[in-house]
Amino acid sequence: MSLMIAGTMAFDAIETPFGKTDKIIGGSATYAAWSASHFYKEIKQISIIGGDFPDEEIEALKSRGVSFDGVEKIEDEKSFFWSGKYHLDMNTRDTLITDLNVLEKFNPQVPATYQGADYVFLGNFMPSLQLQIIEQLEHKPKLIAMDTMNFWMDIAMDELKKVIGKVDLLMVNDSEARQLSGEYSLVKAAEKIRAMGPKYLIIKKGEHGALLFHEEKVFFAPALPLEVVFDPTGAGDTFAGGFMGHLAKTDNISFENMKEGVIIGSAMASFVVEKFGPDKLKETNQDDVINRLERFVDLVNFDLNVS
Amino acid sequence: MSLMIAGTMAFDAIETPFGKTDKIIGGSATYAAWSASHFYKEIKQISIIGGDFPDEEIEALKSRGVSFDGVEKIEDEKSFFWSGKYHLDMNTRDTLITDLNVLEKFNPQVPATYQGADYVFLGNFMPSLQLQIIEQLEHKPKLIAMDTMNFWMDIAMDELKKVIGKVDLLMVNDSEARQLSGEYSLVKAAEKIRAMGPKYLIIKKGEHGALLFHEEKVFFAPALPLEVVFDPTGAGDTFAGGFMGHLAKTDNISFENMKEGVIIGSAMASFVVEKFGPDKLKETNQDDVINRLERFVDLVNFDLNVS
Repeated sequence: MSLMIAGTMAFDAIETPFGKTDKIIGGSATYAAWSASHFYKEIKQISIIGGDFPDEEIEALKSRGVSFDGVEKIEDEKSFFWSGKYHLDMNTRDTLITDLNVLEKFNPQVPATYQGADYVFLGNFMPSLQLQIIEQLEHKPKLIAMDTMNFWMDIAMDELKKVIGKVDLLMVNDSEARQLSGEYSLVKAAEKIRAMGPKYLIIKKGEHGALLFHEEKVFFAPALPLEVVFDPTGAGDTFAGGFMGHLAKTDNISFENMKEGVIIGSAMASFVVEKFGPDKLKETNQDDVINRLERFVDLVNFDLNVS
Repeated sequence: MSLMIAGTMAFDAIETPFGKTDKIIGGSATYAAWSASHFYKEIKQISIIGGDFPDEEIEALKSRGVSFDGVEKIEDEKSFFWSGKYHLDMNTRDTLITDLNVLEKFNPQVPATYQGADYVFLGNFMPSLQLQIIEQLEHKPKLIAMDTMNFWMDIAMDELKKVIGKVDLLMVNDSEARQLSGEYSLVKAAEKIRAMGPKYLIIKKGEHGALLFHEEKVFFAPALPLEVVFDPTGAGDTFAGGFMGHLAKTDNISFENMKEGVIIGSAMASFVVEKFGPDKLKETNQDDVINRLERFVDLVNFDLNVS
C-alpha cells in the first residue's frame, strides 16, 4: 500500500499585500507531499524538475518518506516557474509569469516500484497527462483523486471530462465547479459533476471552507478564521495532501473518515497560508496539528436541545 | 419578560434571476417577528406603517403573539416601499426604488406595555432612532442586539458608533464589518468592533454562513447548501429573529446557548430564501424546523480520532 502523488515541483515568486518573495520552492506535488507526510510516510512522487531544483529540498522530502523514483530530472534545463500577485481579498490573483521550462517535456511514467499504490492524487496539470498516469496503473487503486483548474475547462474540456470520468474523487474550487457544470447552485453543480463519474466531490471555497458531496450526503468544513492570511499559494494542494495522507494512513474510504480527512486537510491549509511557500508545513509538528484540529472542533461544535 | 423587535414593516418589489414580484410584504421587523414567533410568543413590535398595510397581515402576526401597541399607523399615508434587483450571484443587488413614505416620520416610542422587555432587537434603521429606543428603556434588558448597514457608516458613522457603544450584540455582514473596523481580516475586525462596546458580534456571510465572536471564542455556523436561493431578501432579519426568539424562549445568554441560536437563525434563514417574501416562514411548522436543524447537525458533525 502507498500514496502516489503526481504534480508539479517548481519555483514560485509571490507578491501579496503583505510582502513579496524571490524564487521560492513551490508546485502542487511539493505542497501535497509535505502536507501528506505529516500523516503517512510511503509517498510515491511523480513530477519533473530541472537541474536548478535544490538537492536539500529533495533530501528533506526523502527524509519524510517521499520516493523520487518517479521524479524526472533534466539537468541542463530549468524547473517550472510561476509568478503571481494576489489582490487584497486574497481570493483573486494575477499571473505575472509562467515559464513552463521542463514542464513542456513532462511525460509522466509510473515506475515499477510505484505499482500497487492504493491511494493516488493527481494534482492540477494537463488532463491528457493525468489520464496517461491512470492508464499506466496495473492495480486498481482504492481511491483516485484529482484536482484541475478552469484553464483546462477553457482549452481542453473534452479531454478533461475523459479523466474526470475515470477518477473516484474530484477536487475543484467553487468557480471551477460552476464552470464545469454550468450550474450556479453548488448543490446542482455537485449533482451534475458526480454524474460525470466521480462518486465523491470536494468543492473548495478558500476562506469560506470546503464541501464534500457523496450520494445524498453533504459535509461542510469551515476554514479557520485567521488573523492573517499571508500567502494562499498551495493551500488547495496542502488541503489535498492532508486529506489523502489521512485516507492512506487510516486505509479507510468511508464517508465518515473522509469527513475527518476534510477537516485535516483544512487544518493543514490553515497552517500553510501563514507563511510564504511550504515553510510552515516543514516547521509544524504533531502537537501543532492536534491543537489546530481541536480549534476546528471548537469552531463548529454545538449542542442542539430543541423541543 | 418579552422580546422587543424594532424595525421596518414595508412593501418590497423584488426581481431575482428566478422571477419578479409585485408589491409584497417586507420589512426587517416583519421578517424578524415571523421568524421569532416560531420560538417565542410574547413579541413587542415597534414600527410605522401606512394605511395601505393589509389588516390581514397585522392579524396574522397578532395571532402569533406579536403586539402592535408600538406600531404607529398613519392612515392617509403609504408604507415604506423598497424595490431591488438581485444579480446572478444573489450576493449583490441594485436598489431600484426607495420610497420612504411614512418612514420619514418614524419617531419610535416604547409603550408602557413594552417596558421590562429582557430581549431587544433593533433592526437596521437610522442610528439616531435606534438610540432613541434604547434611551426610553426603563429596565436594563438582558440583551440588546442591533443590526445596521454600510449606508449609515457612509453618512452617520459618529451616531452609529454611539449606538454600537450601547448594545450587547452587533450583527453585520462581512463587508460591513470590514468597513466599520477598517480591517480586512474578520478576526481583526471582530476585535476592533468588540472594542467599540458590544461583547458579542455576529458576522453574517450570506451563503457562506455566520461567525459568532465573544471574548477569545469564535463559533462558525454554515449556511445550508441549497439547490435554489430564490430570494435572499429578509434572510438577515430572519436570522436575527430566530436567534433572538431562541434566546428569549430559553432565557439564557451563555455562549453555548448563543451558538444554538446562531444555528437556529441559520435554519430559519435557509427557509425564507426558498420563496419570495416571508411566505415560507408562515407555512413552516415545528417539524420542518426540527428536520432542518438536524440537517445542520449532519452538515458539520464529525468525529476526530487523531493520534
